[in-house]
Amino acid sequence: MSGEQELGITESKEHNPGDWYAEVVQKAKLADYAPMGGFIVTRPRGYALWEAIKDNLDGWFKETGAQNAYFPMFIPEGYLEREKDIVEGFDPEVAWVTHGGYDELEERLAVRPTSESIIAPFMAKWVRSYRDLPLRLNQWNSVVRWEATETKPFFRTKEFLWQEGHTAHASESGAWEEMTLRLDQYQRLYEDVLAIPVLRGRKPEHDKFPGADTTTTVEALMPDGKTVQGGTSHYLGQSFADAFDISFVDEDEDERIAHTTSWGLSWRSIGALIMTHSDDQGLVLPPTVAQEQVVIVPIWQEDTKETVLQYASEIAAELQDAGIRVKLDDRDERNPGFKFNEWELKGVPVRLEIGPNEVDDEEVTVVHRPDGETITDDRGDIVESLRDHLDEVYAKLYAAAEENLEENIREASSRNEILGTIGQHGGYVKAPWCGDEACETEVKEQIHAEVVMVPFDEDEEPIGETCAVCGDEAETTAYFAKSY
Amino acid sequence: MSGEQELGITESKEHNPGDWYAEVVQKAKLADYAPMGGFIVTRPRGYALWEAIKDNLDGWFKETGAQNAYFPMFIPEGYLEREKDIVEGFDPEVAWVTHGGYDELEERLAVRPTSESIIAPFMAKWVRSYRDLPLRLNQWNSVVRWEATETKPFFRTKEFLWQEGHTAHASESGAWEEMTLRLDQYQRLYEDVLAIPVLRGRKPEHDKFPGADTTTTVEALMPDGKTVQGGTSHYLGQSFADAFDISFVDEDEDERIAHTTSWGLSWRSIGALIMTHSDDQGLVLPPTVAQEQVVIVPIWQEDTKETVLQYASEIAAELQDAGIRVKLDDRDERNPGFKFNEWELKGVPVRLEIGPNEVDDEEVTVVHRPDGETITDDRGDIVESLRDHLDEVYAKLYAAAEENLEENIREASSRNEILGTIGQHGGYVKAPWCGDEACETEVKEQIHAEVVMVPFDEDEEPIGETCAVCGDEAETTAYFAKSY
Repeated sequence: MSGEQELGITESKEHNPGDWYAEVVQKAKLADYAPMGGFIVTRPRGYALWEAIKDNLDGWFKETGAQNAYFPMFIPEGYLEREKDIVEGFDPEVAWVTHGGYDELEERLAVRPTSESIIAPFMAKWVRSYRDLPLRLNQWNSVVRWEATETKPFFRTKEFLWQEGHTAHASESGAWEEMTLRLDQYQRLYEDVLAIPVLRGRKPEHDKFPGADTTTTVEALMPDGKTVQGGTSHYLGQSFADAFDISFVDEDEDERIAHTTSWGLSWRSIGALIMTHSDDQGLVLPPTVAQEQVVIVPIWQEDTKETVLQYASEIAAELQDAGIRVKLDDRDERNPGFKFNEWELKGVPVRLEIGPNEVDDEEVTVVHRPDGETITDDRGDIVESLRDHLDEVYAKLYAAAEENLEENIREASSRNEILGTIGQHGGYVKAPWCGDEACETEVKEQIHAEVVMVPFDEDEEPIGETCAVCGDEAETTAYFAKSY
Repeated sequence: MSGEQELGITESKEHNPGDWYAEVVQKAKLADYAPMGGFIVTRPRGYALWEAIKDNLDGWFKETGAQNAYFPMFIPEGYLEREKDIVEGFDPEVAWVTHGGYDELEERLAVRPTSESIIAPFMAKWVRSYRDLPLRLNQWNSVVRWEATETKPFFRTKEFLWQEGHTAHASESGAWEEMTLRLDQYQRLYEDVLAIPVLRGRKPEHDKFPGADTTTTVEALMPDGKTVQGGTSHYLGQSFADAFDISFVDEDEDERIAHTTSWGLSWRSIGALIMTHSDDQGLVLPPTVAQEQVVIVPIWQEDTKETVLQYASEIAAELQDAGIRVKLDDRDERNPGFKFNEWELKGVPVRLEIGPNEVDDEEVTVVHRPDGETITDDRGDIVESLRDHLDEVYAKLYAAAEENLEENIREASSRNEILGTIGQHGGYVKAPWCGDEACETEVKEQIHAEVVMVPFDEDEEPIGETCAVCGDEAETTAYFAKSY
């Protein structure tokens, strides 16, 4: 069992966010580093967060027509090659299987970096008629991208868990609606489950998914001023369908090419969750995904132990019956102070403190994890009041994240203003942009900020007529930011 | 859309079970063959079966203290080597990653064939005190074993989906109970969810999991007389804990070595499910795992269409509200006969036929998939009666499988009797056995049957005093059978 000295977070979120993040992940037992650089071990408390995300999304996907499937984790090199008519390809990032047992393989196998090239040929085989469309497949799996960067659990790992959806449609509008629907579901996940408001938009032309017509994204602003690409949904146009021959016979017996989409959300969402809400005491979780929503810490002396534990157990049972995930920490060998610290570290949203006074007064002392707010409640309507507390905690977390977002969208009308504003404040800087990658490069080379998003036309008016960088005609408003 | 000619199963389960199986799997759209030999694509109808299995087991695992985690899919060669003190190792069956991007790796990475060697070192790191025990981890993942055999979907594939549980305990009895608990849960899955009775026992010494003290198994007898190893649960003793240093400080402050277990069940269970119940019309599924439990096929002429569809829709809505998974097949372009065939092929347990007569008489015609039994029921208590029908279908499937099992356990007291009985009937042959692999080999070389199981001591008395093969003293009763 860990000693007390191991419990505390020693790094500061404000001053050293990178080390702080790594410390929270390890001490809250979410993940550990694997022996190979770039890989992590996801521990039960970390995996439970992924299960919560998965259960929510998977339910929404199924309600809206997506079906889960499973394609092989290996893709023959020739299949990846086939994509190259339309995309640059994943070659530099692919882990290659070259031997099976003692024998060298005739053809190398890629460990999937994403599955378009193995799924598309089967879509082509399965789709014959317009009646087979839309075809909506999804899989929950792990993929490997061999990027040589420093490991950051859930943010940057060579292997990561995600879902990848792949759909085919008879019409452009059908595929476009699909892309939007999945982006909506990603937004819902962040806003209604993870307590993180997001911005929606599309990626600039040069930053689209290879081969895609349009890449859309939800972006979440972290407290350190960097943005996280929270999930992407692509309208692939007909390029993949053309390359892989996904065609169908329409109602008039004409042969037509399908329109396809793909969409993915990874465990980076766990990274955004940790980074957004947690603090120098450790993990902070919204009740929606917390393994324990409420922890009860009984406080006793020898002579009060029995009554206190009795009272606490009854409350625990009542909450559990009501479907609230509650943990009664009745360990003998730890004092209440230790327990407070431990459950704060693990991010339990609400703590109930129960001592002899609470028993005598038929009350409970309720403490909110995010801000330490302490409330005394009647024992009588404990279920009702706890539900309210959990909602309040969620609202507090969301409000704090929303405030951070709103305060950190600024405008700029010149290159220097973009650089200066991001340099000083971080966050998003909106600027009129010509759409040319060169103008982004000028910013990127100076401060590693890029165009992370272009708002959908219907959402925002252009904020200027000439590009803030080059002075040519502005095509759109761009959001510049540093990105994870 | 598939033409009618594609719907029918052309092979015979009785006369050509291998081809029949492959045809059912493909035509019922459970799986397709991947471009690389040994790999399959699991289609939504196949994956839904895996999800049903997973949901059941995962719930039971969690109720009994197991926590899900996720370990990397790659294992450094040196980690696999470390196991070799205790086990022979998986070398001949390992797929090796040798390159990341354009670069050769310094150390080869094995695509996990199973995860003991990557999980055990982390157990060693996480376990410090007796308070950290038992530690019960489980993961749902895919593993790769490079075996060069003919592909048989769900039975023999190089990559397969499974769960692998790994636990550490303070005492031998704790680990032994764990092993038994998981075997119980596997039995429950087969008997209460898949409608397949199983036998329980342990594997002979020479066929244990490498390094294990005891390997236990549930065995399911297929209609073709071969047995399927349905899931295995191992008591690993202290060998892995010793090799990987999984030790802990006990209540007396003494350092002790843990006892470990592992247990796994794969998508082979889907194979056993298909093989057991399906027939020459296609897939047959128990209602527990069927995506559609009830299909309603309306039968109309132009003048009755509206009333028939109205009546059928109301029934569909009522069943759905009651939580029954129902599909109303109101397609215009297909006639009822076609629909009957299609849903039979897909294994829907119960069909409701609704035509003008049913509407007039306020009745429904109910057809059971497995045997075509046809019943007329009142419209009034449709939910109640459908629940009964679904239970009946389950009971019919179970009873048929049980009959097959009971009729195919025979006894033998000599080598020739073992050979003759299995040669003639298949199934299990019980014989007294000295425990020596050589005696098994004599049988194996003749008819490819082996000792698939030794019943637990408490379950069965030895049936003879001398080994049926060599005549030496019998140590136990062995079940000989051909095996998938």
